[in-house]
Amino acid sequence: MKATGPIPTGYESIDGELAIGGLPASVLAEKSGDTPLFVYSSAHLRKRVEDTKSAMPKRLALHYAMKANPYPPLLALMHGLVDGFDVASGGELELALVAGVNPNQISFAGPGKRDRDLERAIALGVTLNCESEGEVERAIAIGAKLNICPRLAVRVNPSFDLKGSGMKMGGGAKQFGVDAERVPALVRHILIAGAQWQGFHIYAGSQALSADAIIAMQAQTLDLVVELTQAIGTSPPKVNLGGGFGIPYFPGDTPVDINAVGLALDVRLSGLPESLADTHFCIELGRYLVGEAGVYLTRIVDRKISHGETFLVTDGGLHHQLAASGNFGTVIRRNYPVAIANRFDAAPTEVATIVGCLCTPLDKLSDSAHLPRTDVGDLVAIFCAGAYGASASPANFLGQGPAVELLV
Amino acid sequence: MKATGPIPTGYESIDGELAIGGLPASVLAEKSGDTPLFVYSSAHLRKRVEDTKSAMPKRLALHYAMKANPYPPLLALMHGLVDGFDVASGGELELALVAGVNPNQISFAGPGKRDRDLERAIALGVTLNCESEGEVERAIAIGAKLNICPRLAVRVNPSFDLKGSGMKMGGGAKQFGVDAERVPALVRHILIAGAQWQGFHIYAGSQALSADAIIAMQAQTLDLVVELTQAIGTSPPKVNLGGGFGIPYFPGDTPVDINAVGLALDVRLSGLPESLADTHFCIELGRYLVGEAGVYLTRIVDRKISHGETFLVTDGGLHHQLAASGNFGTVIRRNYPVAIANRFDAAPTEVATIVGCLCTPLDKLSDSAHLPRTDVGDLVAIFCAGAYGASASPANFLGQGPAVELLV
Repeated sequence: MKATGPIPTGYESIDGELAIGGLPASVLAEKSGDTPLFVYSSAHLRKRVEDTKSAMPKRLALHYAMKANPYPPLLALMHGLVDGFDVASGGELELALVAGVNPNQISFAGPGKRDRDLERAIALGVTLNCESEGEVERAIAIGAKLNICPRLAVRVNPSFDLKGSGMKMGGGAKQFGVDAERVPALVRHILIAGAQWQGFHIYAGSQALSADAIIAMQAQTLDLVVELTQAIGTSPPKVNLGGGFGIPYFPGDTPVDINAVGLALDVRLSGLPESLADTHFCIELGRYLVGEAGVYLTRIVDRKISHGETFLVTDGGLHHQLAASGNFGTVIRRNYPVAIANRFDAAPTEVATIVGCLCTPLDKLSDSAHLPRTDVGDLVAIFCAGAYGASASPANFLGQGPAVELLV
Repeated sequence: MKATGPIPTGYESIDGELAIGGLPASVLAEKSGDTPLFVYSSAHLRKRVEDTKSAMPKRLALHYAMKANPYPPLLALMHGLVDGFDVASGGELELALVAGVNPNQISFAGPGKRDRDLERAIALGVTLNCESEGEVERAIAIGAKLNICPRLAVRVNPSFDLKGSGMKMGGGAKQFGVDAERVPALVRHILIAGAQWQGFHIYAGSQALSADAIIAMQAQTLDLVVELTQAIGTSPPKVNLGGGFGIPYFPGDTPVDINAVGLALDVRLSGLPESLADTHFCIELGRYLVGEAGVYLTRIVDRKISHGETFLVTDGGLHHQLAASGNFGTVIRRNYPVAIANRFDAAPTEVATIVGCLCTPLDKLSDSAHLPRTDVGDLVAIFCAGAYGASASPANFLGQGPAVELLV
């Protein structure tokens, strides 16, 4: 038997079934017309945004990093809840516009922006988080061609990273941003060129669960902002402090203490020098806002025994849940939180391995989990499916195609 | 500096550029209308199939496991070259039909077939490689409902595996097939039920480079076939011996000696008992036939230095090349074969890391490779992109979308 991750709070049962948005899993599966499906809870999303805003300092704006989940109805909902969107490609930019986001609420990061992406963003008045000197040059040239003054922020590659983070985006040689020591010269160049300098984007890492680590990173980020501002001699209009707030996926993981993070940040922001009094600060969160609001539901199509082990074969798999299968950015496979959705209240009585329908041994959704007794037709729920699920998995692998998505 | 994998044979240069199908990389990029793109060489495919057929015993049929690459024009080409197709889903079945493959040339494996998949396959006369007793029951019931006698083979979970294989599909508890000791009873049940028993499917593993390992696996597979046939008392009409032939991806990898495999298999097939004299044997190969025929071409959009390291940022990435980025089924990331396509003849002069355009540190295409000096606009070639590339990567991740594909 292997442990499974903690089921996020906010999920209850109706008539013994897992319910999302007040609807039992079996009703959701019927409503969607097919399994597998992703269900996103708008109540969960709203509450998470509310809790985050109330924990963070009043001065801090909250942006949504839409790379975590670009499902259009979810974007439209988030648009009404947050202060801005961070996009990571020309494709994401178009989706944000369709969701009704105003271009001046959008910032665009990403190390491989093409000229056509820059043109579109500059024409719209989107803020570019420039990742290199070369990108700044291209943006200035395109602005001149279009006769539009581009809005340029500089993404800084900090010399520190986010301790205990699942993904480090700073601290050493990186493809992201401009090494901190070259930033003052680049900003002066932007100012001299007459572009609208928008400030800094400093993103040191993601998926940390330790409040202390996030507090330390934010403190270092603010110190760097003070230092850069001093070196440049001009105050940044905006500073994006990045994200880094993780969610519990695996056995033993515990939630980030966001109140502790918010309190520490409040103290730090209050202590900033006068030169940063008019600067707008924001954080950008993706996974933290939407990850736990999503559940992947897949139906058991076969139940079989091999060499004494029980396998539950589902109609889903890694083509929708690459990260849950342990094949995306993880070295050692561990189990995401899982349940039998239509037996949500039943006590576990057997150990079984849940696999997907693909013809590859990589397609494992839960290894030797302790579960209630199941039959063909039962629904498996994989939690923490709201971020980096549908859009971060190879949907067309083995001719499968995408899952249904529902916002309830 | 880190080594890169061996560039497959069959790639030459025209005017100093990598050429595929007689066309230089820059011409291919122009022809496709956009980068990144996958280019598949029909000449490479034809030669690989020819070489494989001539190395294998005359008695052995060659099937294409289309999961490796389902690009429609490639399927149509393969249809004219091989004896049958193995599909792994209802979606692949439809693609095979569109490519003109006759249903009686198709076998359908996969542990999570749904009732609707079984219905469609049975109605068409496709052979089902049944993965469990439960699937056999469902197939028989659906056959009765449709008044069609289903064609059922049994996928056997052997007690041995493929040594040194990249992916083990046998040897112990698995979601694939029926444990060997339960197979005779299941086949007798199929015969009694009046279904058309088609024989065995025995797939022990994939991506092995050692001829000895493949020879040993095939010998064990044939021993198992003899044993099962004896236990059942009826000869299998067909036996699919699986695949397992790997291709070199990484530094130090060498090609499989298929002539040695073919010679050993010939001896083994000649020595089979009389009861298997009329049995049709086949192997199913996917990656081996198509993997080295494909090249991924992506354009450098930025060249930057961070902490003294050179990064080449491309317009491609793991959304098309998940396995090359080291994020699919590998524990330690190693470099695929790589070249600067438009400087194919140039000597390496610098060390650089090639990354994709995604905003994640996972998006690395080649780590600290020894390359000629490059500029923005140059084309990077990642080799071994013909199998498990386009269709096995999360194309929509970060709003990117699929790459262009070309068969030349």
